[in-house]
Amino acid sequence: MLNPVIDGGVTSPVGFKAGVARCGLRRPGDDRPDIALIFSEAPAAAAAVFTANRVKAAPVLVSQENLTRRMARAIVANAGIANACTGEKGILHARRMAEVTAAALGVAAEEVVVASTGVIGSYLPIERVEEGIRFAAGSLSKDGGGQAARAITTTDTVEKEAAVSFSSGGATITIGAMAKGSGMIRPQLATMLCFITTDAAVEPDALQAALSHAVDESFNMITVDNDTSTNDCVVVLANGQAGNPVIRAGTGEFQLFQAALSRVCIQLAQAVARDGEGATKLLEVAVRGGASREDARRAALAVAGSNLVKTAVFGGDANWGRVMAALGYSGASFNPSEVDISLGPLLLVKGGCSAGFDESLARELLGQEKVRIEVNLNSGWHGAVAWGCDLSYDYVRINGSYRS
Amino acid sequence: MLNPVIDGGVTSPVGFKAGVARCGLRRPGDDRPDIALIFSEAPAAAAAVFTANRVKAAPVLVSQENLTRRMARAIVANAGIANACTGEKGILHARRMAEVTAAALGVAAEEVVVASTGVIGSYLPIERVEEGIRFAAGSLSKDGGGQAARAITTTDTVEKEAAVSFSSGGATITIGAMAKGSGMIRPQLATMLCFITTDAAVEPDALQAALSHAVDESFNMITVDNDTSTNDCVVVLANGQAGNPVIRAGTGEFQLFQAALSRVCIQLAQAVARDGEGATKLLEVAVRGGASREDARRAALAVAGSNLVKTAVFGGDANWGRVMAALGYSGASFNPSEVDISLGPLLLVKGGCSAGFDESLARELLGQEKVRIEVNLNSGWHGAVAWGCDLSYDYVRINGSYRS
Repeated sequence: MLNPVIDGGVTSPVGFKAGVARCGLRRPGDDRPDIALIFSEAPAAAAAVFTANRVKAAPVLVSQENLTRRMARAIVANAGIANACTGEKGILHARRMAEVTAAALGVAAEEVVVASTGVIGSYLPIERVEEGIRFAAGSLSKDGGGQAARAITTTDTVEKEAAVSFSSGGATITIGAMAKGSGMIRPQLATMLCFITTDAAVEPDALQAALSHAVDESFNMITVDNDTSTNDCVVVLANGQAGNPVIRAGTGEFQLFQAALSRVCIQLAQAVARDGEGATKLLEVAVRGGASREDARRAALAVAGSNLVKTAVFGGDANWGRVMAALGYSGASFNPSEVDISLGPLLLVKGGCSAGFDESLARELLGQEKVRIEVNLNSGWHGAVAWGCDLSYDYVRINGSYRS
Repeated sequence: MLNPVIDGGVTSPVGFKAGVARCGLRRPGDDRPDIALIFSEAPAAAAAVFTANRVKAAPVLVSQENLTRRMARAIVANAGIANACTGEKGILHARRMAEVTAAALGVAAEEVVVASTGVIGSYLPIERVEEGIRFAAGSLSKDGGGQAARAITTTDTVEKEAAVSFSSGGATITIGAMAKGSGMIRPQLATMLCFITTDAAVEPDALQAALSHAVDESFNMITVDNDTSTNDCVVVLANGQAGNPVIRAGTGEFQLFQAALSRVCIQLAQAVARDGEGATKLLEVAVRGGASREDARRAALAVAGSNLVKTAVFGGDANWGRVMAALGYSGASFNPSEVDISLGPLLLVKGGCSAGFDESLARELLGQEKVRIEVNLNSGWHGAVAWGCDLSYDYVRINGSYRS
């Protein structure tokens, strides 16, 4: 197997440790840690993809600034408060988080990536956060990955970790990652937060290219509620401790690394979609026959993101007309009378009209934990896959009272 | 008052009658009529705006064809089955509806506008529909407007009618209208169905211009679930029976007519938003300070359409960060640190940060039946208003089991 998936997370690659702390940023009674720290023992090449939202949280702005050198040693993140829409004071807080992390780890403040997730508009209780960071730095360990993954969750119901290991240039390379995200997920926004570590040596430009591609195939193809966060970021640190020759763009090693990175990102993206707020099912929409890659992507995302498709999937109702309607407003170019739609193995629509399917079989397929809708636009050769989830009563419950 | 709103609907203008029938297109036990017929005793200028969805229902295609002459005598509509994604057979059925209507009324088939709303993908039981149309034609009356409005409802909880009356060119002009729509509502899609009648004499080009403008300010500014229907249409018939001199574009009479038509459309658009599937509140989002009209429109629609804003409004939670986030991904151009946001009279955000407001007052304002969010982008002089509704448990219930 090319990229065997292994149990693990951000501390699986050589030379990475993680620690956590609890400094009271969550609601009373929520005893999850709320500060996560990831540390690379050696300087690491860094690449990142940030939210496309015009309203960017303070930690996003500070991290963008710090990552201009494309090197980093640590990532510090907090849950509970997003430090977004907090003006100059928020910027000072985000910088302070980097400075305190740097001081505790003996690195430069510019080598620290900062991230926050939680309620928008509130200020961080910065003294408590500083204490928390110092505590987390003192607790760094090779076993800390799981707790770190837990520390960045908010409405997530499970921690999300992934890791792969493979041989390249005579060395064994490991990629580990953790993500959080459940609501406010949509394409062009990646998930809320995803931190990836690898012991591969990768040239910074190649690392950014590999990450951008992986994000495009994974986090940019999931949709939970079409709302775009102010805090989204995906960061990868590559510290070269595996001892492989530096991976450069355009080589076979790059292809291998790229594939492994995409695999980790897709696994986490699916985990985020599956854990969509209130979700009871993972929805996978595979489109082929698109006139262009963009057509296929738009079509897949429109179907996966349609509230009407999502509620029908929740209700177990094979209402394929809603799939047709979503394709129709997706912006993709196609001829409606040539569209085929299947629910897993069951053909629902042939040439734009009902194929006369077995309703009870459809209901059974919709009852499964993973629902796959296949669309053939019959207009070309391009394909895309998007992931989402059903829309349930619980989505409304969770979001009707999130802040209070 | 310029355009006094009167009680009434499509049969309020001189020379229009309506009739209904029940031919079994709805679920058992649903005793609403399912066929509506609107008849103009004199030939009428006609204008229309249809769905932008690439997947267009058969009645939309047939009506587009019939309206190329810009004259019509009748509108026939059914609820229960959308006659969409029904291929050639669907086209024949829609044509048949026009033919049977024409024969019953003694007009040409090309003078009939056809519309359908309901489940996508099912075929009409065309013989029963034909019988229904003949029955409806026999029941035409000046009092039929209310029943016709009821006949086109689906998940709507109330009928939607509006009318205005005003003086122009020495004559009294009346505009009456009815609409249905509750889910599958989004900009660029108007409401599902809206039929407008007027006894004004209006030159066809001017009528189309007035309608396009009115739709742009009303049905294109409401959003319930961001899903775009295959069947949307807004049609206006102007039969000239008021005896006014023909209204031409660019005149004072045109301005007056335009304003009255917009008023009727906005009233119905608000009624549709207020009756959004599962809605408990009307959400009005007013944006000013936009760098362009398009910026203001995008910003208003993004806020009114955000699932996260909608659930917060449902839950009575003044989570203004979600408004900021929606503005940020709207595509509108602005500087986040200059944005002000108010909830009715209560300032929530000043210069992109919390204004330190009274949470209990905010909760009280969110508890009202109409919630108004005001945004000042402070980037220019353009404004726009959008309407939506909250997202409740009932939206999920209604859409999880619509077809079954």
